[in-house]
Amino acid sequence: MAQTPSIPKGTRDFGCIEMARRNYIFDNIKEVFRRFGYQQIETPAMENLSTLLGKYGDEGDKLLYRILNSGDAFSGVDWASAPSSAAITSKVCEKGLRYDLTVPFARFVTQHQNEITFPFKRFQIQPVWRADRPQKGRYREFYQCDADVIGSTSLLNELELVQIVDMVFARLGINVCIKINNRKLLAGIAEVAGVPDKMMDITVAIDKIDKIGLDNVKAELLEKGVGEAAIAVVEPVLTLSGSNQEKIEFMQKMLSSSEVGMKGVEEISSLFELISAAGIRQKVELDLSLARGLNYYTGAIFEIKALDFAIGSICGGGRYDDLTGIFGLKNVSGVGISFGADRIYDVLLGLDKYPASLLSGASVLFTNMGEKEAAYCLGAISELRSHGISCVLYPESAKLKKQFEYANRGNISVVIVAGESEMAEGKFTVKNMASGEQQSVAKEDLFHYLTDVLE
Amino acid sequence: MAQTPSIPKGTRDFGCIEMARRNYIFDNIKEVFRRFGYQQIETPAMENLSTLLGKYGDEGDKLLYRILNSGDAFSGVDWASAPSSAAITSKVCEKGLRYDLTVPFARFVTQHQNEITFPFKRFQIQPVWRADRPQKGRYREFYQCDADVIGSTSLLNELELVQIVDMVFARLGINVCIKINNRKLLAGIAEVAGVPDKMMDITVAIDKIDKIGLDNVKAELLEKGVGEAAIAVVEPVLTLSGSNQEKIEFMQKMLSSSEVGMKGVEEISSLFELISAAGIRQKVELDLSLARGLNYYTGAIFEIKALDFAIGSICGGGRYDDLTGIFGLKNVSGVGISFGADRIYDVLLGLDKYPASLLSGASVLFTNMGEKEAAYCLGAISELRSHGISCVLYPESAKLKKQFEYANRGNISVVIVAGESEMAEGKFTVKNMASGEQQSVAKEDLFHYLTDVLE
Repeated sequence: MAQTPSIPKGTRDFGCIEMARRNYIFDNIKEVFRRFGYQQIETPAMENLSTLLGKYGDEGDKLLYRILNSGDAFSGVDWASAPSSAAITSKVCEKGLRYDLTVPFARFVTQHQNEITFPFKRFQIQPVWRADRPQKGRYREFYQCDADVIGSTSLLNELELVQIVDMVFARLGINVCIKINNRKLLAGIAEVAGVPDKMMDITVAIDKIDKIGLDNVKAELLEKGVGEAAIAVVEPVLTLSGSNQEKIEFMQKMLSSSEVGMKGVEEISSLFELISAAGIRQKVELDLSLARGLNYYTGAIFEIKALDFAIGSICGGGRYDDLTGIFGLKNVSGVGISFGADRIYDVLLGLDKYPASLLSGASVLFTNMGEKEAAYCLGAISELRSHGISCVLYPESAKLKKQFEYANRGNISVVIVAGESEMAEGKFTVKNMASGEQQSVAKEDLFHYLTDVLE
Repeated sequence: MAQTPSIPKGTRDFGCIEMARRNYIFDNIKEVFRRFGYQQIETPAMENLSTLLGKYGDEGDKLLYRILNSGDAFSGVDWASAPSSAAITSKVCEKGLRYDLTVPFARFVTQHQNEITFPFKRFQIQPVWRADRPQKGRYREFYQCDADVIGSTSLLNELELVQIVDMVFARLGINVCIKINNRKLLAGIAEVAGVPDKMMDITVAIDKIDKIGLDNVKAELLEKGVGEAAIAVVEPVLTLSGSNQEKIEFMQKMLSSSEVGMKGVEEISSLFELISAAGIRQKVELDLSLARGLNYYTGAIFEIKALDFAIGSICGGGRYDDLTGIFGLKNVSGVGISFGADRIYDVLLGLDKYPASLLSGASVLFTNMGEKEAAYCLGAISELRSHGISCVLYPESAKLKKQFEYANRGNISVVIVAGESEMAEGKFTVKNMASGEQQSVAKEDLFHYLTDVLE
């Protein structure tokens, strides 16, 4: 057992500084969710495979982590029948790890529908697991951070999610562009282009426009059976410029013959009116080339990009009309967003936006000059802690140099020394690590002195 | 798919109120850890089985959840050789779910030893999974909440853990008894009883004294080969009464011939001196019948019981001298404690100690009387939220009765009505849901009015 231990590929340990930064992100998001009346829930890491399978497409099913049944999982397998791998797997694994938070949430709402007061506003911040090929920025275990309102079709919910995004990124100091589109506009475009059955193909193709460019999107559309004439109708929409209002007017004219398209125009135009009335500080843009891959979206869709840092979208979401239908609860509409914690982490790091205080574990280190000296510090330490100040007493009476090194490495702001002379005078020597300044402070004045220094 | 979905046996959904209560517990504990300079880390849910196997005894190995390798896990199995279930399992599962936080922590410290500044004070709050038979109060997924200091042998660390326990339960309003013992005293007792090799048997037997009583402990000792004469030496220790000081003096006399025993007396007596000097508010008791089952403890051991509510221990821990040795990092001593979140949850519920505010998702509901009225509220809502007040705008213009019901069910303190007349006068009608009192408040005074009401 003497080889250095390691962790599975695609998973991560989060050390103290990474955790402090992650908590900074999650605490900010949670505080905003709280102000908007969203309440937290948690679901188990393990779900029955019957809940998970078939919800993420064939590719998703392959990426599910399956858990071996406990006890002797293989005792009931009839080897003589030469079962296939798939047959054995379904026999020996009944549970899997959560793949996202959306399906467990739909399961939760269906299972607890009689206890829930609708409209139900919940948020959920938990890890998910995918047996994906690990690569830069893609992990097999990562946190999702979702907020959804379910049981209301009002566009005020869409507005609220935009306001949440606005407040979260204002608090984090990230300038973003909030891109909005509506699946009904996409459906309308497919209709007026004469290919209403190709709506999802069009959506999937234009979802890639950022990655592969307009020409490749057109090639893919042709491949999917969307003809040249139809593409000629779709193309100007994808390259449409102008103000949000101009775009809405363009769509209104273009989609006048499509019922679903006009419903989309009405929704998007009401939402932009609400956004104007509420006053959003960040940039909000109607982006008709925004599609989002997930096929359960039916109305508004959102995607948020950082303006000053090149990275994919850092938040996204949309309206879905029938998420719980797969579990037998029909006609429940909802709308939600998901914050991409790992990418937000990288943006804040790249833009150097983390508060410096996140680097320090404690604010104050009391050095340890021996048993009596340590005992002399105990009362002051308790007082500071009871006032909320984070203090450490160095546990060993090591060389002072080593103790100061410990303070330096831990980014501790203040080091307090109490030796024989300080004890005799009822004082402490307080050293400000940033300025190097040193001050003798009476025991009873320590708390007030430090509250000034630590501000 | 129309049958009602469910979750795996022994796992739980945490709804909004349960989560608010759990967060209340964890937030209090985290705040205390922070004040003592402990920093959070997280490790992956999945560890390599080579990290986990053999660390929890044969019984523990059986309770590990194993994860099927991704891809076609069974393709490499040589069925012709008629492999045993164990052989197949080890072939098709390389990863398992975390069984506790201690072994992952030891793995973390070993793996990251060059990045860590010792003494290293970390805390960790994450779920663990055990394929145990589910029963009342025992789950297959539950959170552990651990704090450890590693890389220091000083008893100041033990003191600090006692202070942490003291502050946590003071904040939560739970009166506890902090029971302390030392494994070296148990070793000394085995020595002076003439059965030094039976130290672990004695420990395991007396660990059960609360559950099975003194007579059954004696019977078990006999069974384990501890003779009548030795039991006659052990017994008076288990039933020893008196003050902590009297117990220490008794042990000092009794163990004078045992080197390890006298080291234990020295440690326990120093720790109680430190506790007196630091001033602990909760009851602290030297309990010589405290043993704790885990065999890695080598010094101080702790166990905390609620005084006003009958339940097992709600917190426990101890000193271990060689936790990272299993991973090849020798001679690193540590001491830690673990809070039992599920039991603390039950104690607070049983004693009715949760703040009433945990029941409400939002503080204020703005009713929705129509599109124009809702738009009239938007500015006020934004202002309140920017000041940290949690507000909800009812998303549909439903009947007022329904909206008030929504406020009642959600324990919302204040409901605000804005209809045509309020809009005309630039006012809001504010209803205090507890008192039933209703007040007309000018738009610009709303925030100040509410800060008073909500206090």
